[in-house]
Amino acid sequence: MGEGGEKRKLSIIVFSGTVDRLMPVGILASSAAASGYEVNLFFTFWGLQAITKKAIQAMREETLKVDLNYQEFGSMIAKRMSEMKYPTWYQLIMDAKSQGGVRVFACSTTMGFFNIKREDLADFVDDIVGAATFLDRAQGGETLFI
Amino acid sequence: MGEGGEKRKLSIIVFSGTVDRLMPVGILASSAAASGYEVNLFFTFWGLQAITKKAIQAMREETLKVDLNYQEFGSMIAKRMSEMKYPTWYQLIMDAKSQGGVRVFACSTTMGFFNIKREDLADFVDDIVGAATFLDRAQGGETLFI
Amino acid sequence: MGEGGEKRKLSIIVFSGTVDRLMPVGILASSAAASGYEVNLFFTFWGLQAITKKAIQAMREETLKVDLNYQEFGSMIAKRMSEMKYPTWYQLIMDAKSQGGVRVFACSTTMGFFNIKREDLADFVDDIVGAATFLDRAQGGETLFI
Repeated sequence: MGEGGEKRKLSIIVFSGTVDRLMPVGILASSAAASGYEVNLFFTFWGLQAITKKAIQAMREETLKVDLNYQEFGSMIAKRMSEMKYPTWYQLIMDAKSQGGVRVFACSTTMGFFNIKREDLADFVDDIVGAATFLDRAQGGETLFI
Repeated sequence: MGEGGEKRKLSIIVFSGTVDRLMPVGILASSAAASGYEVNLFFTFWGLQAITKKAIQAMREETLKVDLNYQEFGSMIAKRMSEMKYPTWYQLIMDAKSQGGVRVFACSTTMGFFNIKREDLADFVDDIVGAATFLDRAQGGETLFI
Repeated sequence: MGEGGEKRKLSIIVFSGTVDRLMPVGILASSAAASGYEVNLFFTFWGLQAITKKAIQAMREETLKVDLNYQEFGSMIAKRMSEMKYPTWYQLIMDAKSQGGVRVFACSTTMGFFNIKREDLADFVDDIVGAATFLDRAQGGETLFI
């Protein structure tokens, strides 16, 4: 519970599709869920592309895509994650969901734009909504654009 | 109105200048305005550069600048936007303004830094303010850094 | 004081390590501190890499690293900052701290991940915490992911 007794809430607009930005999404979602927050994730644009079944399969098999600004660290990150047996960002989201209180939304506008169908998306997606619906859910908590 | 009866509010610090990040600014602003939110946009750094009259004119004529991390999708996006007759991000902002409740601010510090004058800026800018003034306006709502 | 008489609060998750994104962190932190806000900064991932003593020393000596999307402005920015005698982002953070009400946190998960030790970090770091602890501090104010 928050200071005033109300439920604490974290909402994230997941815009980015590089693994260095998807990791904090997973870490924040699982940390917040473990602390009893209501967590809302809204995958849009490059973020939505990253949660297609095809993209997640590719991430299992290929080199992780790190922001070009920091690509000198790309191979070090892959190595460290493997050494530390650190969960992937999508594993973190699935773990967060299993703790309860976490809802995953896909952006309806982006789906039309990129011609992505519901069956193309990872199974952890709960619903397809527009920006206005998501903003309403996010009201009164902390909201991040990542 | 929000849960407690208060006016809902969305404020965005528009830092980025690539079209893939400016689109969500336009979509969030117009969605929120249509739902009756107070919307405050604060254009700073690369975002401010994007709302000079010169930059907007260039975007009408040239290839859209997409984040380098996702440039393999650049031409597909331009094609889809044209096929869908989707409004541009600045059209979305102008539409949002016509719905009322939307204010557009330019960052005074960035203007000094890049030597940009008020007459250089798009006509949809309402006022030039500093970060502290904008933070005050943003209090009590959702605030995003894009 | 905010509208309801409560203390105003700004919290920033500092994820990025390019100077164009670290500047707004410094400007927002110092503006907010000067206006009497409680300010919480949480350095994580590339942002944490940027506040090692080694990285700050390198920034004093080398060309500033600007986001690749805007690299055509890189040398202009270095020139303008020098002409205007504008403080660096880390100087802005130190100035903000000297005004009081500003706390700087380093992300414990990132430290483990990159094998960074407390003694490697800049002296302006107050504490090392996890994401859940930071989210708790951020409750009830504006929170940005930069």
